[in-house]
Amino acid sequence: MTIQKTMHKVTTKEQAIELLDSYDSFLFDCDGVIWLDNDLIPGVLELIDHLKTTKKKYAFVTNNSSRSRENYLSKFAKLGFSDVSKNMIFPTCYSAALVLRERFQIPEGSKVWVLGDGGIEEELRECGYIPVGGTDSRLDDEWDPDHELLDVDPEVKAVVVGSTKKLNYLRIATTVQYLLHDHKALPFIGTNIDRTYPGPKGRILPAGGSVVLFMKYTCDRDFVDVGKPSRVLLDAILELTNFERDLTLMVGDTLYTDIKFGNDGELGGDAGGTLLVLSGGTKARDLESLDDSDVSLQPSYYIESLGHLVELMRL
Amino acid sequence: MTIQKTMHKVTTKEQAIELLDSYDSFLFDCDGVIWLDNDLIPGVLELIDHLKTTKKKYAFVTNNSSRSRENYLSKFAKLGFSDVSKNMIFPTCYSAALVLRERFQIPEGSKVWVLGDGGIEEELRECGYIPVGGTDSRLDDEWDPDHELLDVDPEVKAVVVGSTKKLNYLRIATTVQYLLHDHKALPFIGTNIDRTYPGPKGRILPAGGSVVLFMKYTCDRDFVDVGKPSRVLLDAILELTNFERDLTLMVGDTLYTDIKFGNDGELGGDAGGTLLVLSGGTKARDLESLDDSDVSLQPSYYIESLGHLVELMRL
Repeated sequence: MTIQKTMHKVTTKEQAIELLDSYDSFLFDCDGVIWLDNDLIPGVLELIDHLKTTKKKYAFVTNNSSRSRENYLSKFAKLGFSDVSKNMIFPTCYSAALVLRERFQIPEGSKVWVLGDGGIEEELRECGYIPVGGTDSRLDDEWDPDHELLDVDPEVKAVVVGSTKKLNYLRIATTVQYLLHDHKALPFIGTNIDRTYPGPKGRILPAGGSVVLFMKYTCDRDFVDVGKPSRVLLDAILELTNFERDLTLMVGDTLYTDIKFGNDGELGGDAGGTLLVLSGGTKARDLESLDDSDVSLQPSYYIESLGHLVELMRL
Repeated sequence: MTIQKTMHKVTTKEQAIELLDSYDSFLFDCDGVIWLDNDLIPGVLELIDHLKTTKKKYAFVTNNSSRSRENYLSKFAKLGFSDVSKNMIFPTCYSAALVLRERFQIPEGSKVWVLGDGGIEEELRECGYIPVGGTDSRLDDEWDPDHELLDVDPEVKAVVVGSTKKLNYLRIATTVQYLLHDHKALPFIGTNIDRTYPGPKGRILPAGGSVVLFMKYTCDRDFVDVGKPSRVLLDAILELTNFERDLTLMVGDTLYTDIKFGNDGELGGDAGGTLLVLSGGTKARDLESLDDSDVSLQPSYYIESLGHLVELMRL
């Protein structure tokens, strides 16, 4: 594998056009790339139109596990996307269910314990599983060492851990019972390794990976990461979308998830296949202070935002 | 420093007497050594009587941060200990306050943000600090991204993190604001690194270190550990008690906290100064499977329980 050791800033019309021409398929992170919270990033719809006109393929991949694909469909429609279908959206609640089915061969009809939000429950159900735990309102109870849900249900065949605002000691303690059960035999899926995310009012808030690593430390056992930058996720997406590895560009705003995802997954062949946008969590000064020794964090290209790419092409 | 590479099982009257004669001072872990939950381990009071008769000194050191020394005093009295005073008890809520005062020189009257239980608040108050966060009932609210407590109080000068059954997303998210504030400038004290503890009904439950490491990962910053096996704690205790390092024995039931604490702290001189009791979390088979390469986890001596030591002496 060869990775570009120089990061190219895209600054001219020719560079913008060449960049888009060099790839057949585009994987977009969502938050900080396509939208910020509920606001579309200006220029994104024009870029998508350009991709459609030039017969390019695209899909969306987000480490968020709280919303199901169905839920994202509504969000895309509301923001004005006209042609996004369910099979173009990869949130980690969906990849968690996929990995349970494909890699762990957990049979349909099995129960799966969830520490996380409704998105995970919905996607598990779509794959034929029965989610337990999760948003069960009994888990909102005050801590009680005799709580009925602390007794392990022997029909549970796997555990999925992600972010939830409903985090409390009872949810943590019940999840620990499953993770330690039967000498730590149940598969442990973590939706991502994200420490934080930028919340409202510019506040940095705890993200899913923070909860996953919490459970990893508590139970002293490892997990299967189904979020970016995990290769498990990229390989699954390439297989499901039929995107060609050498001709795919990953577009994201975070170095240690999005960019590492594309680089570790060897997207784009020798020229590399990662584009960093500075419209989300990463700023230009972060690129400057990047440690040269970890090439997996270096994007092949970078630009202010997708809107900026569209503006350059219009020149 | 020389550490015993052979662990001696104490099995005869002569060995029991020699063991107690070899040390002037004794540090006891509590849970699993002195008591199990609210039940005294049989023989413990007789052993303490023997230490008093032979003019030995002793103190108690626990990684639990939820109860203050005042609170432990009542527990000792209730269990029949007649001569335990406050300056013989070292829970990590107290060591957290000590370290803020001695090592970080945080001035009296400063506010300290707490993720943890009332014990931490009480000990901070005794050291002249003003605890904020902690058991504040506003933190029991549902998650609200606009919650008033998410605004950092600039008067807060340090953060203490420990275990609490009141864990919820709001407590976590508010604590993260303080840990990240001002480029991670506030001192971050962790009460211990314990992953789990044995709860009621033999259930393994998340412990304080689990929450400390959760915050460490989320905020991507290190902390000062004021629990066992931290040398910071041992040095403070030796200074406050005037116990002599070479003549002190640490008695505990956990290898990676109690025994490592005594070994890393070079207790007992060349002969070593650690006694493992098998009346708590560690079983004989754990000793057998112990990796030889980590000598810091190897106790100098081991025995079933403190009661067993008393029985041997009676023979």
